[in-house]
Amino acid sequence: MKDSHDVVLAANAVYYQAFENQDIAQMTAIWENSDRTVCTHPGWPTLHESTPILQSYDAIFRGPQTLQVILTNERVRIDGDIAYVTVDENIVDQGAHASAAAALNMYARHGDQWQMIVHHASPIMRR
Amino acid sequence: MKDSHDVVLAANAVYYQAFENQDIAQMTAIWENSDRTVCTHPGWPTLHESTPILQSYDAIFRGPQTLQVILTNERVRIDGDIAYVTVDENIVDQGAHASAAAALNMYARHGDQWQMIVHHASPIMRR
Repeated sequence: MKDSHDVVLAANAVYYQAFENQDIAQMTAIWENSDRTVCTHPGWPTLHESTPILQSYDAIFRGPQTLQVILTNERVRIDGDIAYVTVDENIVDQGAHASAAAALNMYARHGDQWQMIVHHASPIMRR
Repeated sequence: MKDSHDVVLAANAVYYQAFENQDIAQMTAIWENSDRTVCTHPGWPTLHESTPILQSYDAIFRGPQTLQVILTNERVRIDGDIAYVTVDENIVDQGAHASAAAALNMYARHGDQWQMIVHHASPIMRR
């Protein structure tokens, strides 16, 4: 059996792969389908539960931009059936414009799989 | 024994009371003293572990502003020894300037107490 930290990191990689590839099916699969899911995109109010969360990704994916997300400072903590990952999202658009967000992603264990229950990304302001 | 949801909500109230009262002793007590703590203030990069986190509150408290935080949309979920609260922080300064942040606060159970392990607040942009 693989180390849980590696499995959580792999789930986190799938999340960002789905985001970069604008793949709504993969995004739907990585999220837990439940009423405890929470998503806060940078600058957005918090969305609760699967339907509005997946609709928000669909809306983002239908937008004009494709975004590359380079991850730095990725850290994982696991407590029982809950894991949380902190990571900096270094976001580059097609115009080579860069911005950064501080993300907290929570995952819940389902057997040997982990599914996302929280994504909270906040813009890091330049000082 | 009180319902765990109520105890988590009480811990969350203590956090905001400590913030409003600029009470660093109370703030120190509500945070878990461990290496798994994470704090992201609105617009800030993520801080890890107790010392830099408590230093950040100390720096905020030494600033010129006292802030009132009115909480709305508070929701609690508990999974084992981990709880998370989502809440909107409606922040009013002494000049009656208002701003809003979307917060995710995580708590860990210690017997019948809950201590904060994550505070992540992101600015809600006006659209």
